[in-house]
Amino acid sequence: MKGAVLAVGSELLLGDVVNSNAAFLGRQLAAAGVEVISSVAVADDLPRLVALIHHHLLESDLVVLCGGLGPTVDDLTRDAIAAACGAPLVHHAEIEAELVEKFRRYGVPMPEAVLRQAQVPTGAEALANPVGTAPGLWLPFNDKVLLALPGPPHELAAVAAPVWPRLAELTGTVVTTRQVLVSGLGEPLVAEAVEAVITLPEGVALSYLAGGAVVRVRFTASGDPSVLEPLVAAVDAALADKVWGHDSDTLDGVVHAALAARGQTVAVAESLTGGLLGAALSERSGSSATFRGSAVAYATDLKASLVGVPEAVLAEHGAVSAETAAALAQGARSTLGADWGLAVTGVAGPTEQEGKPVGTVFLAVAGPEGTDVVERRLPGGRDRVRALTVTAALDLLRRALGNG
Amino acid sequence: MKGAVLAVGSELLLGDVVNSNAAFLGRQLAAAGVEVISSVAVADDLPRLVALIHHHLLESDLVVLCGGLGPTVDDLTRDAIAAACGAPLVHHAEIEAELVEKFRRYGVPMPEAVLRQAQVPTGAEALANPVGTAPGLWLPFNDKVLLALPGPPHELAAVAAPVWPRLAELTGTVVTTRQVLVSGLGEPLVAEAVEAVITLPEGVALSYLAGGAVVRVRFTASGDPSVLEPLVAAVDAALADKVWGHDSDTLDGVVHAALAARGQTVAVAESLTGGLLGAALSERSGSSATFRGSAVAYATDLKASLVGVPEAVLAEHGAVSAETAAALAQGARSTLGADWGLAVTGVAGPTEQEGKPVGTVFLAVAGPEGTDVVERRLPGGRDRVRALTVTAALDLLRRALGNG
Repeated sequence: MKGAVLAVGSELLLGDVVNSNAAFLGRQLAAAGVEVISSVAVADDLPRLVALIHHHLLESDLVVLCGGLGPTVDDLTRDAIAAACGAPLVHHAEIEAELVEKFRRYGVPMPEAVLRQAQVPTGAEALANPVGTAPGLWLPFNDKVLLALPGPPHELAAVAAPVWPRLAELTGTVVTTRQVLVSGLGEPLVAEAVEAVITLPEGVALSYLAGGAVVRVRFTASGDPSVLEPLVAAVDAALADKVWGHDSDTLDGVVHAALAARGQTVAVAESLTGGLLGAALSERSGSSATFRGSAVAYATDLKASLVGVPEAVLAEHGAVSAETAAALAQGARSTLGADWGLAVTGVAGPTEQEGKPVGTVFLAVAGPEGTDVVERRLPGGRDRVRALTVTAALDLLRRALGNG
Repeated sequence: MKGAVLAVGSELLLGDVVNSNAAFLGRQLAAAGVEVISSVAVADDLPRLVALIHHHLLESDLVVLCGGLGPTVDDLTRDAIAAACGAPLVHHAEIEAELVEKFRRYGVPMPEAVLRQAQVPTGAEALANPVGTAPGLWLPFNDKVLLALPGPPHELAAVAAPVWPRLAELTGTVVTTRQVLVSGLGEPLVAEAVEAVITLPEGVALSYLAGGAVVRVRFTASGDPSVLEPLVAAVDAALADKVWGHDSDTLDGVVHAALAARGQTVAVAESLTGGLLGAALSERSGSSATFRGSAVAYATDLKASLVGVPEAVLAEHGAVSAETAAALAQGARSTLGADWGLAVTGVAGPTEQEGKPVGTVFLAVAGPEGTDVVERRLPGGRDRVRALTVTAALDLLRRALGNG
């Protein structure tokens, strides 16, 4: 089954909004066995939208529209589908009743224009919207399908949720994906190690996605998914402690789980990251069970007064040094009262500091059995150095906790 | 001048990468007077790429391709342009010499495949890439232009920088945009206030962009830009201290500038944001002149032991309270040694805390002349509440500093 994604909205062409829906739909459609051959952004312009629907119905079996289902006169997706498929809009009384009920619950008067959302092209099925007002639409058209989904990403995800299994059934393809998540090794070396130990069976695709100091080794099977298990096991064995998780795991999630399993906590002392490491460790709900807090000692003197780094260490070795990183980790552990102290200090740029070049970062982890320090030289500008430092720090703690 | 944007890469259709280049190009092209009528993602598939270039040359005067200029066999943009325009690739010795020199500087051997980047379609001009290896391409074709830019966003921006003034000259349109940046007021109320005081002259467009607790009031003039000044002044006057900046200003930048002008510093104590507020205040280079650090007291007891909130305040009012927010701000100011202390405490969710619903946030600023506390009820899930809290806190400090 071939598919086209049409993201509707002039703001996409003007660049006021990044088209993240296209990426979300691309992933979901691929998983449901639909090959997306076109992904297009289109302005709020009825003739153009109708022409594009016609065009993409010629080469695709499924045309997915997102956006343009709101209540205003700029919202043209319903009208465009009706015109393109010769399926005049019909008012659905039960959708109107649901809209009235929703606004009653919101406690605000319902604008008259919202009733446009009760209009459905003849023959289309309305898809319930549990988190907003615009229903989605599913319209069989000859041997093809048009699918319309609301533009706000959380509404799109909620309305489309029941559609994915339905599409997977239509395509008859169960695409199964397994990912091995790796850090501490660049993409070429990961590929070399993986390809030395595996032989790819028929119907399985292998790809690598690198970004943010993480490499994802991805296997996709379009047939029997049981062939994936030995491949994943072989990669796990070959990459050993470089593997920190699988599939939808996140590095912070893995760290929290390892801490929770031991009944332990972590506290942070950070400098160049300015709070990003604490933010990463508090991103998920429930993190208060394992994350105590962070001392962001951005000014050098706070490394002493807030975290307890000895003045002599700062004077002798500087703020960006292995010795200061170790003292910060030990200080985070004792001052913030945690089982583990995790610390970073370094040069985010744009200029060197204490004679150390941009990207120089010292990371330290202090635990019940001592302190480890590593020095890294990270690439990129200020934002990238800060982001890579967070990943490297989480990975250091992960290894100290014995995961991998 | 009508334009088409073709983002090249199968990863865009699979949804592995969000197409942020399309938004960047949309904004830049609009500013240069090019109306983007199509924005398309296309797979690494030579026949399809050639067909799309042909198709978009029919309806557009400018076709911009991004991505597919790398050294691997998957990088097909050069070949596609050559095929579509009947302009065979020619090896440029001077580009080869530059590539050799770049790899010499990087200190790594140059892979043979990189020499593909020295190939240029006949008649095309190579555009220098100061931050990577792939040059861009500018190819006049009949009365139209093809422009090819590298895919990595920072390379794209750098290679394209000299192109925008050139395009503006070609279009003869100088599109001038002015933005008034507003917080503390929702989009409908901003629109009401703006439209009560201005009359839009011919050739000026007005739009509103809302996101992240900030509303951007945008005027775009396609002719004489001097008509914009009185409009901006009228909006500034009407919205008074709700206006915190203009054009490319950022809230953290405005705060740093106001602090620097007074020769003062700020320190933070934060809870639900876990470090995001410190991260925002250390995002830009040079922020160490005005930002001291942050005490991320995620665990309640650290609010006392790290920041000095009296135990009695915590016991009587709870961690999420106006009293604790005020004590945190005062504690940040004294413990971290700054002129201003900024603090946030609240409920990020997903569940209520101390009987207070998700989104309840107390913000406090302590300064030389006392402490202000505000309570807000922020919408959305955990991530959104945390992000909106950062914006609200920066805005509170901005007002305390008398900006606006």
